Amino acid sequence: MKAIAVTDGDTRPQIIEKPAPEPDEGEALVRTLRVGIDGTDFEVIEGNHGGFPDGDDHQVLGHETVGVVEDANGTELEDGQLVVPTIRRPVGESNAFFDRDEPDMAPSGTYVERGIDGAHGFMAEYFTSPPRYLVPIQAEFADVGVLVEPMSNTAKALDHAFASRSAFEWEPETALVLGNGPLGLLTLAMLDSTVDRTYCLGRRDRPDPTIDIIEKLDATYVDSRTTPVAEIQEQYEPVDLAYEATGYAKHAYETVDVLAPNGVGVLLGIPGDWSFEIDGGRLHREIVLSNKALLGSVNSHVTHFEMAKESLAKLPEWFLEDVITDVFTPEEVDDAFERGDDRIKTVIEFDTL
Amino acid sequence: MKAIAVTDGDTRPQIIEKPAPEPDEGEALVRTLRVGIDGTDFEVIEGNHGGFPDGDDHQVLGHETVGVVEDANGTELEDGQLVVPTIRRPVGESNAFFDRDEPDMAPSGTYVERGIDGAHGFMAEYFTSPPRYLVPIQAEFADVGVLVEPMSNTAKALDHAFASRSAFEWEPETALVLGNGPLGLLTLAMLDSTVDRTYCLGRRDRPDPTIDIIEKLDATYVDSRTTPVAEIQEQYEPVDLAYEATGYAKHAYETVDVLAPNGVGVLLGIPGDWSFEIDGGRLHREIVLSNKALLGSVNSHVTHFEMAKESLAKLPEWFLEDVITDVFTPEEVDDAFERGDDRIKTVIEFDTL
Repeated sequence: MKAIAVTDGDTRPQIIEKPAPEPDEGEALVRTLRVGIDGTDFEVIEGNHGGFPDGDDHQVLGHETVGVVEDANGTELEDGQLVVPTIRRPVGESNAFFDRDEPDMAPSGTYVERGIDGAHGFMAEYFTSPPRYLVPIQAEFADVGVLVEPMSNTAKALDHAFASRSAFEWEPETALVLGNGPLGLLTLAMLDSTVDRTYCLGRRDRPDPTIDIIEKLDATYVDSRTTPVAEIQEQYEPVDLAYEATGYAKHAYETVDVLAPNGVGVLLGIPGDWSFEIDGGRLHREIVLSNKALLGSVNSHVTHFEMAKESLAKLPEWFLEDVITDVFTPEEVDDAFERGDDRIKTVIEFDTL
Repeated sequence: MKAIAVTDGDTRPQIIEKPAPEPDEGEALVRTLRVGIDGTDFEVIEGNHGGFPDGDDHQVLGHETVGVVEDANGTELEDGQLVVPTIRRPVGESNAFFDRDEPDMAPSGTYVERGIDGAHGFMAEYFTSPPRYLVPIQAEFADVGVLVEPMSNTAKALDHAFASRSAFEWEPETALVLGNGPLGLLTLAMLDSTVDRTYCLGRRDRPDPTIDIIEKLDATYVDSRTTPVAEIQEQYEPVDLAYEATGYAKHAYETVDVLAPNGVGVLLGIPGDWSFEIDGGRLHREIVLSNKALLGSVNSHVTHFEMAKESLAKLPEWFLEDVITDVFTPEEVDDAFERGDDRIKTVIEFDTL
């Protein structure tokens, strides 16, 4: 079968031939329809994220996937059922985090991540998986189901953010999304029904398709080159919820200043090492005196995929069409991994329903 | 009546004479028994915290108080009932935060704080208050009821910390308290029944009464001069919960490193401005990849006082005796506001039951 993989020393992913996988007992065989590309894929390609599967000289990419059950193989799934796979798998048989369906909370070393770290991904014509890692989705999501995985990361992050404010009455009215990449835009759309006013930070000139989407969502585009994060509070308003999806480390700390009292900032970016000066005393004091919270959130699991499915069903048609800007065949791999400001979510289509 | 107040320009609190307050309709008159002294009092004295009540040239100190209802004055309280007052009062009639009994979450400008900022405290023979700000406590707490207010701050902080981890299964086994002042020691004792192993950070040489208490609680004393916070994880173990009560700004950031995956650091200190360099990229990444949380917590209200009452009832007798090291009469005000390593909690006793 065809697969898209990065090989040791490669700087670009390539299409390769691999034997189609045979499902073990208790595993279903899934035929891949679409796989999305995101920033993590580029980190894997650049070798900055995770490692190859044990004993292999290549890593099949892909972690944002929708597929169809080709052979339920005696599992509780049904042939023809549309599914989205989760990413983490246990090292060894299982562990407490997997046993209680919370592998997203598992510490490093207890899991591998399909398509990212230590396990092959889903960017191939077929893959196998135990059904507990396959989330059934509606048949009408064949084209947009690749958005369930990224949206599930936001579902988890928001779930944790709301939990962190659950010891008191908290009704957020305003939210700021830092980052206008696909995850930022999806989050902005998800927040549309949660808060009254939304802002989205980017660093792009008009005309730009992400700014168009931001404004079609009735959100306010904030250009970080003219309005630094720390000034958003004054220039617009403080926000109850901030969602960082830039990976720009200073944003983690600047978030404190943009939050309204009792606000929460949830961090999802994964920056590299970077030392800089902060007004650490003032920020510490501000966190305390205004009951603020900063949370990190990584990965997601079945409950969050279920939340994401519900959110996806509520997103407007035009938004889904505008966000998935590019669809390529596996053979167009070179094109697919190009980047550009005109692209938002690129997907590779292996097959259709 | 006698009161202990700080006057404009004074560098030390003094005993003054004031007319005893007359309760308004809907207010009870309370006879003060004991008032504790804490770091906030010294900040008020040094003029670093809040301002005097409108139109007054002095501020009566005191916010850790136990008293007895002298005249219920038609309220639902009973004469002779032991009570502990809460601290925040609304600016103006009321506001949404007070209406829902969450003034601890009210933003700056919407409240004054008795004994701290803009309102007279309880360090006087009598005070008046609406009953909604008076928490009834057991008669046997006449001597130790001054601990309810500081413990209520911890009750709130822990309530928020646990809430922040409530979106997944979290059973903390280890906790670190940063700071061996009275609040740190009270928190350490409160955590004794919550986690398996506790650590307490200080910078004192033995013999020292706080180290004695730490070790009598079966906690581990960590000397920050030989074991910096960032090294606690390696030298001892990572902790699920960190509680910062030092006001030392770097601890807010170092806390991230001492936390186990999925851990939470709750900050209560109120540092001044201080700029310094941090490894902001690494810390941001660590917060995200390990699902960590940092929360600020300030003040507390009736529900937290109720929690504190329950915790107080569970503390061992020896601990309470060891923590309240000094009891002074109002006339001994000069002595009472001396500081020393042999003192833990100092209280001023206006009367006995």
